[in-house]
Amino acid sequence: MTTTDLPREAAGFNGANCPVPHAEAERVLLGHGSGGLLSAELLRDVIIPALGSAAPSGALEDGAVVHVSSQDLVLSTDSFVVSPLFFAGGDIGTLAVHGTVNDLAMMGAMPVALTVAFVIEEGFPIADLRRVCMSIGDAASAAGVPVVTGDTKVVGKGAADGLFVTTTGLGHRLPGLTPSAERAKVGDVVIVSAPIGAHGTTILSTRAGLEFEADIVSDTRPLHWLVATMATAASHAIHVLRDPTRGGVASTLNEIAQSSDVRIRLEEAAIPIPAAVGAVCEMLGLDPLHVANEGCLLAVVSPDAADRVLAAMRTLRAGQDARVIGEVIDGSGPRVVMHTRIGSNRIVDMLIGEQLPRIC
Amino acid sequence: MTTTDLPREAAGFNGANCPVPHAEAERVLLGHGSGGLLSAELLRDVIIPALGSAAPSGALEDGAVVHVSSQDLVLSTDSFVVSPLFFAGGDIGTLAVHGTVNDLAMMGAMPVALTVAFVIEEGFPIADLRRVCMSIGDAASAAGVPVVTGDTKVVGKGAADGLFVTTTGLGHRLPGLTPSAERAKVGDVVIVSAPIGAHGTTILSTRAGLEFEADIVSDTRPLHWLVATMATAASHAIHVLRDPTRGGVASTLNEIAQSSDVRIRLEEAAIPIPAAVGAVCEMLGLDPLHVANEGCLLAVVSPDAADRVLAAMRTLRAGQDARVIGEVIDGSGPRVVMHTRIGSNRIVDMLIGEQLPRIC
Repeated sequence: MTTTDLPREAAGFNGANCPVPHAEAERVLLGHGSGGLLSAELLRDVIIPALGSAAPSGALEDGAVVHVSSQDLVLSTDSFVVSPLFFAGGDIGTLAVHGTVNDLAMMGAMPVALTVAFVIEEGFPIADLRRVCMSIGDAASAAGVPVVTGDTKVVGKGAADGLFVTTTGLGHRLPGLTPSAERAKVGDVVIVSAPIGAHGTTILSTRAGLEFEADIVSDTRPLHWLVATMATAASHAIHVLRDPTRGGVASTLNEIAQSSDVRIRLEEAAIPIPAAVGAVCEMLGLDPLHVANEGCLLAVVSPDAADRVLAAMRTLRAGQDARVIGEVIDGSGPRVVMHTRIGSNRIVDMLIGEQLPRIC
Repeated sequence: MTTTDLPREAAGFNGANCPVPHAEAERVLLGHGSGGLLSAELLRDVIIPALGSAAPSGALEDGAVVHVSSQDLVLSTDSFVVSPLFFAGGDIGTLAVHGTVNDLAMMGAMPVALTVAFVIEEGFPIADLRRVCMSIGDAASAAGVPVVTGDTKVVGKGAADGLFVTTTGLGHRLPGLTPSAERAKVGDVVIVSAPIGAHGTTILSTRAGLEFEADIVSDTRPLHWLVATMATAASHAIHVLRDPTRGGVASTLNEIAQSSDVRIRLEEAAIPIPAAVGAVCEMLGLDPLHVANEGCLLAVVSPDAADRVLAAMRTLRAGQDARVIGEVIDGSGPRVVMHTRIGSNRIVDMLIGEQLPRIC
């Protein structure tokens, strides 16, 4: 394949006024795994075009709907490379179950079965592998989903960093629920189900051995029952469901704005940021809107059903702090803006590059 | 968790006459990824018990049947860590598609959808990623299965060796086909669909830069059409289907013998081993029966239907060299024996430890 097949170059990015990079020298950067802008570019410019006719069609969601004999099934897959493997509130096993269960839930599906594949570095302690498997078992049992099959590969010392886990989930879509990042409409409200920023700041503080570690615990948890409860309240009113993991709330809302070609306005004062999360972010110069979450969801909902959906969410612990944080507004060009506490408006960008590698 | 929870220890392996290993010191060995005896032990003694009630029940096959609204669906997952990434006849992308399509096929299922998850090392050449994605796209298109969703994670330089790919397949079971490693019966014949040993010896010779490299090409290919053709001939007569990947024909047949509690007798003269494969194995002291394959299957079939199944297989290129290599016989204790060319009998063992790491 020659470099001219690259859509990015075909679109003129390597025009006369730009330095022409030598394609062979292009390399994957940490930021390509951030869940932000570079991730989207890698997918759009490299992976999807190369997959050709076998590639997914339509919007790139957290999973895909597969029609089998008039059934709406959903598949979702994620590799987990979090470092450290163990942290306050969970470990790579917990995350591998919740992450995939939640990706199914964001497609409107309840989990039916999970698969687990391990890549293990030679010399990895068996006791740690057992601990991770117990976390997977506990999290799967608690979520009511069986682990039906798996795979184990071992690579030589130095060829992997301890343990990577890939889970894939098969789900069954709830009737009437067809959320998609393309369905946000002007007038819709944006709901967040829980306070934000706990997972990313937990990983960061664990990694850095910072003193405030004790105050923060990852929010990792399954969200499918929350989605089921929301669907019971008003399934057709739920236009978009996304969990703001890598790239945080800012990146997820930007993706929704772009996919739906709408503008989203956030109300800064409404966004729930725990004091400990705020403190870590301030100390380290992070924007809490860019920090990864593993236990909250963003929903874009019809305004007429918002109260009903919120009331339903608040009946569950996972949604007890659910609240409206913004709305979908008119305006030219997809964008996320924030009405700040001091009354000004600022643009909320997607995360560019890598704020915090190996967060999940 | 304390070490006393280990079934292996509960069963008395650490009794008074054995040295008691310190559990914390137990570490994952390369051999735990071999597909042979150590892999089976890791699964049985560590992973399955730790998963607890969420763990798969019943026999450990290449995938799992999931019942969704009276549909028999099959899920299968595999991580691919092959080194080198590119080799004669394919690359990690080809393998990741064929491996999972074939695992579905061995469960009697046709592929409906694939997912792909990448773990990429920082600095990996974009050109190589594109090449692998093209291989995935080509192999998936050729197999008639779409890649419906995926994931991309990037880890820091040195935290992974280039690229790991995990694919998961959803399949749809063919009516009347319920192959299982537990269903081999005395009197059944053992069929191999193609000459053995090409994949493992190709990887080995590529890795070693050996001169005979040019003579050997990986046999990687999809086998689901072969299975469909066999099912058309005599679906109920097909008792077991397995592809002898890691651990080779010997390990796969030992697994079948143990799962079905039968004895299998191979006829050495009937086993098709290409001359180049034989030469590499002889030079390097490998047993071709332990070498990995990626494009052939083993079938255990009712004797009365064997001719029909063989005739059907031979109509396809993937099965043109199909032949009977052994039979299921009476005898106490599950075991694989081989009637050799010189007229003696020898026991064919499962691969113990790791003959050739990162073969797939």
